[in-house]
Amino acid sequence: MIGVGVIGYGYWGPNLARNFAENVGARLVAIADRHEARRALATRRHPLAAILSDGLELIARTDVDAVIVATPVRSHFDLTMAALQAGKHVLVEKPLADSSDKATGLASEARARGLTLLVDHTFIYTGAVGCIREMARSGELGDLYYYDSTRINLGLFQPDVSVLWDLAVHDLSIMDDVLGQHPTAVSAHGISHVEGHPVNLAYLTLRFPGRLIAHLHVNWLAPVKIRQTLIGGSKRMIVYDDLEASEKVRVYDKGITLKDAEDGASIYKMVAYRRTGDMIAPRLNMTEALEVEAEHFLRCIRGEEAPRSGGDQGVRLVRILEAAEQSLREDGRWVSLV
Amino acid sequence: MIGVGVIGYGYWGPNLARNFAENVGARLVAIADRHEARRALATRRHPLAAILSDGLELIARTDVDAVIVATPVRSHFDLTMAALQAGKHVLVEKPLADSSDKATGLASEARARGLTLLVDHTFIYTGAVGCIREMARSGELGDLYYYDSTRINLGLFQPDVSVLWDLAVHDLSIMDDVLGQHPTAVSAHGISHVEGHPVNLAYLTLRFPGRLIAHLHVNWLAPVKIRQTLIGGSKRMIVYDDLEASEKVRVYDKGITLKDAEDGASIYKMVAYRRTGDMIAPRLNMTEALEVEAEHFLRCIRGEEAPRSGGDQGVRLVRILEAAEQSLREDGRWVSLV
Amino acid sequence: MIGVGVIGYGYWGPNLARNFAENVGARLVAIADRHEARRALATRRHPLAAILSDGLELIARTDVDAVIVATPVRSHFDLTMAALQAGKHVLVEKPLADSSDKATGLASEARARGLTLLVDHTFIYTGAVGCIREMARSGELGDLYYYDSTRINLGLFQPDVSVLWDLAVHDLSIMDDVLGQHPTAVSAHGISHVEGHPVNLAYLTLRFPGRLIAHLHVNWLAPVKIRQTLIGGSKRMIVYDDLEASEKVRVYDKGITLKDAEDGASIYKMVAYRRTGDMIAPRLNMTEALEVEAEHFLRCIRGEEAPRSGGDQGVRLVRILEAAEQSLREDGRWVSLV
Amino acid sequence: MIGVGVIGYGYWGPNLARNFAENVGARLVAIADRHEARRALATRRHPLAAILSDGLELIARTDVDAVIVATPVRSHFDLTMAALQAGKHVLVEKPLADSSDKATGLASEARARGLTLLVDHTFIYTGAVGCIREMARSGELGDLYYYDSTRINLGLFQPDVSVLWDLAVHDLSIMDDVLGQHPTAVSAHGISHVEGHPVNLAYLTLRFPGRLIAHLHVNWLAPVKIRQTLIGGSKRMIVYDDLEASEKVRVYDKGITLKDAEDGASIYKMVAYRRTGDMIAPRLNMTEALEVEAEHFLRCIRGEEAPRSGGDQGVRLVRILEAAEQSLREDGRWVSLV
Repeated sequence: MIGVGVIGYGYWGPNLARNFAENVGARLVAIADRHEARRALATRRHPLAAILSDGLELIARTDVDAVIVATPVRSHFDLTMAALQAGKHVLVEKPLADSSDKATGLASEARARGLTLLVDHTFIYTGAVGCIREMARSGELGDLYYYDSTRINLGLFQPDVSVLWDLAVHDLSIMDDVLGQHPTAVSAHGISHVEGHPVNLAYLTLRFPGRLIAHLHVNWLAPVKIRQTLIGGSKRMIVYDDLEASEKVRVYDKGITLKDAEDGASIYKMVAYRRTGDMIAPRLNMTEALEVEAEHFLRCIRGEEAPRSGGDQGVRLVRILEAAEQSLREDGRWVSLV
Repeated sequence: MIGVGVIGYGYWGPNLARNFAENVGARLVAIADRHEARRALATRRHPLAAILSDGLELIARTDVDAVIVATPVRSHFDLTMAALQAGKHVLVEKPLADSSDKATGLASEARARGLTLLVDHTFIYTGAVGCIREMARSGELGDLYYYDSTRINLGLFQPDVSVLWDLAVHDLSIMDDVLGQHPTAVSAHGISHVEGHPVNLAYLTLRFPGRLIAHLHVNWLAPVKIRQTLIGGSKRMIVYDDLEASEKVRVYDKGITLKDAEDGASIYKMVAYRRTGDMIAPRLNMTEALEVEAEHFLRCIRGEEAPRSGGDQGVRLVRILEAAEQSLREDGRWVSLV
Repeated sequence: MIGVGVIGYGYWGPNLARNFAENVGARLVAIADRHEARRALATRRHPLAAILSDGLELIARTDVDAVIVATPVRSHFDLTMAALQAGKHVLVEKPLADSSDKATGLASEARARGLTLLVDHTFIYTGAVGCIREMARSGELGDLYYYDSTRINLGLFQPDVSVLWDLAVHDLSIMDDVLGQHPTAVSAHGISHVEGHPVNLAYLTLRFPGRLIAHLHVNWLAPVKIRQTLIGGSKRMIVYDDLEASEKVRVYDKGITLKDAEDGASIYKMVAYRRTGDMIAPRLNMTEALEVEAEHFLRCIRGEEAPRSGGDQGVRLVRILEAAEQSLREDGRWVSLV
Repeated sequence: MIGVGVIGYGYWGPNLARNFAENVGARLVAIADRHEARRALATRRHPLAAILSDGLELIARTDVDAVIVATPVRSHFDLTMAALQAGKHVLVEKPLADSSDKATGLASEARARGLTLLVDHTFIYTGAVGCIREMARSGELGDLYYYDSTRINLGLFQPDVSVLWDLAVHDLSIMDDVLGQHPTAVSAHGISHVEGHPVNLAYLTLRFPGRLIAHLHVNWLAPVKIRQTLIGGSKRMIVYDDLEASEKVRVYDKGITLKDAEDGASIYKMVAYRRTGDMIAPRLNMTEALEVEAEHFLRCIRGEEAPRSGGDQGVRLVRILEAAEQSLREDGRWVSLV
């Protein structure tokens, strides 16, 4: 049984704690949070776990084999590095760190020590993304044309990072998982609507080799919540709406046809883009993503599986975020990723 | 009674012809189209109108007081100029022309001759846009934060222009009508997925004075039709979905609140963005936009109203489209509009 | 070319007139309506047709081979009978007549004279109902369990009949077309909310041989328009939503499984009803139903096809409506249909 | 601090246990379930609670002040009566009991002993139903015309009761809470599609004094989950959709207008039902209903509030269910409730 400790019991930490508490292969032995009120809540929910105020104290415990880091981004590096250096496996909230240097440092440290480092890119553990991945990788979609996502939100601003690090990272992780290719450059536009706060609305364009383009729209200041992704291919197209209760993924049989047209003077090719078959909403595995991810993390620790969202993926995504921030500062200039 | 002639009886022309045929202030006297099959259809529907193959012949008729130009973009200038020079009022399909020089030429010609020149920016004649305009102009929305629109389509590619000239022009006309301010620069990214054809997927970002940003996503190669616009203001936000049957405009009472938060070490301002009131879907005038527009055109001719989408607006939008095309060619470089 | 005359140019008549005017096999020769304003509109739209105030005059014209009756229900019998007796083919608005005796009289008259009598049960000419019919008749759905429909409306009350004759008749025609079996009894509950007016809200339950049940909810006084039908079978289930733009028919692979369960004391069979496969929205023929129906009527007249919604179907539906009205008056008592 | 024990840790019990465990006014001291696997799960989640196999043993514990009964319907009476007789307050799953005699017995026992008896009619503790109640009770809706609900499901059949006791009871509790009047008779139609199992699809019609009618459609064998309620009044109408994320309640300003119409021969009153104002989706309290209900139960025990869903309501609803079952057996005969 693997002893698990959770640092950070704010918004997301409780979900991680609950999933490890219910996994029969783990024992939730400790929870750390700086805030009194959160510790009180953790005590009510997990009365057998040690409830601490200091993350380093948690890391030092001998009954903790694996550390879950669910704190704000700026503390990811210190806590994760401390845990790795103490010989603990780590599952860390996304993004892996607030700079690519730090991210690389963590990935290297884990590799050098033979420890599991997993980044909590939750979405790739959903049935929906698994299904999309299979279709994209198997060639069912044909040549990939575009990945277009709108991920807009209402609620709290993150205090220390722009909306890119909070929302765009989800799409970057999904793209990394399903597309089978990596972007070569990024351009970003954005704006801050609250004096003295980071960018809360941003548009990212990502260039790929070939004819694939990706675009992300992220916004903390939206009237409604939208989670909609369109993936266009030469043979089929997907609409993925994470807020749909049961038909999250819809696959459309559409295709381009060319025909001769005539315009009085000249003959030219008309391009028609039409539905050529049915729409299918595949049956999806509806297991909670965090349950799948927790089990995967434990299997990685036991050497039964290799990390699907390991340090390498974490580094790749932080690099893109860093380049996008740079493009934001330079007014949309393309920043190379290769 | 104003004698009306329609040039171009393809996709949109029949709707214009029908609306003038039913307006009691007009008489549909002639229709011209190059294609035999379209002329046959026009004959069945409007048996009293003269059905011609040549637009110039239609312009020359003495019973034609006003000409409707509903042909592909590349012929807008020649036909509209010929009509104006023959002393006819003109309602021309959007966009006004395929270059800003030509557009300016048409606007000047109409002004010089005291003729009505109206551009068919249909959406601004809908009850929905009228309602949004009132809220934006009256200050009900507060400071404007963003205009974000997704207008994606399936169907025929336009043979002679990119998706910008076909779809983005709709949003540019709505923005011109409701925002009360004009963009100062544009950046565009896009891609063509069909060899030898113009860009079919594009993203436009528009910069304004102050903190307003606009962004348009247009795509001819989408699995589903979407017409969704978000307009964010400091006091209220709007979701405008043109495909909704009755609640096309939804107004959200949302606002930003700041509160002190504390993070162990430091104290900082938390930004929360929350719903502070009800959502309201205002009752809209549901009259068909083309009916309103046809009546407006006739009133302008009779000197009873001034054009809401006249030559000046037509020129402004073509300038933006031209700049956006240039930005597309230069890989997203900001092109100034002032 | 078949000469067509339309009696009644109110809400629905213009759609019928337009479709026959555009069909190359027909010539719209006359339109009759009692109201001045409607005649004026008809004149603008169909300037070559004779515009009359009297339906009987239209029937008497020698250039009229086929009569379209689009008047209120109470005049269906007189006009249709007059037309048949004048040797004209008839397409009559639903329902065929306001009593089963009259309906039977019309069906007999048409049969005796060898004339085409078609009832305008528009929905059965849609691609959606055609697709459902194929699935139901081919056994793809398995044993039929239920047909449940909500058809609620806002707008004008019909002056002379209850909501049953206006709205429920649509579902009865769809059921007649797709189910392949006829109901044996009907029970109806309803209420009138406007003093002195017929029932505006009603619930019909229909009994069939075997385990099939049907239920209709019709309402003129609803806040929103709903057109939703659920068809349950032992192998598959259908959701048919006529207001959906493109995915009007959705087919769900669902099935019942039984498993032993244990409850401390006893062992019993648990029934689980679950999704066992994908959801499919079949590609549908999107041709306007009235266009299909107009063409079908002309082919029936030319002896090329047999009526899909002929006098016999018209009689069956009127019998059900009559029995349902009786059940309404008798507070829901089952009224036999056999 | 009130000691709480939960009997039944199946589908719903865990939600009740969690809400009491997190309420600072309560202590979750014991959980009982007959099934080994459920006890194991309870142990993981609530390690400090006593985990038992026998409900009576839980009732007997001196640290248990209040008992939550979350078992199948057939055992509600025995367990609740035993708890009351042991002097414990009880919160019991809906419906209160499987017969009105038993329900009455429980209500009397609680009254006689001065103990709190609350029935878990969860929906009335939602912000949505609270908002509807306020509008209906304040006269904002005008005269009530109808309550129409579709509550259809997929998943497990209840082994011991028909779909009425599982699903219709929710609507009956909402109606009891919001309408301010009680039905006088019920008629029910239904059918069982699985040999040897209770009715899985039913339609209930409820008669009220005046012009109000209610109708419920409940179904365990549906392809999709629907939770849609329409409430019609003379001044306003409500659409309540519990599956909507944020706009669960929509209020429509609609009204009936009468105008003279003329039909050639006669003059009659036309009834038009139209939108007369905006649609408003009021801001709702989004607190989890069970959290509100748990707090309410504890306050009732402490004498701070009176039960909103107490024994009397429980008895009223069971009487309706019983009458509806009788009507089902007698083929839809109206069964009086007064």
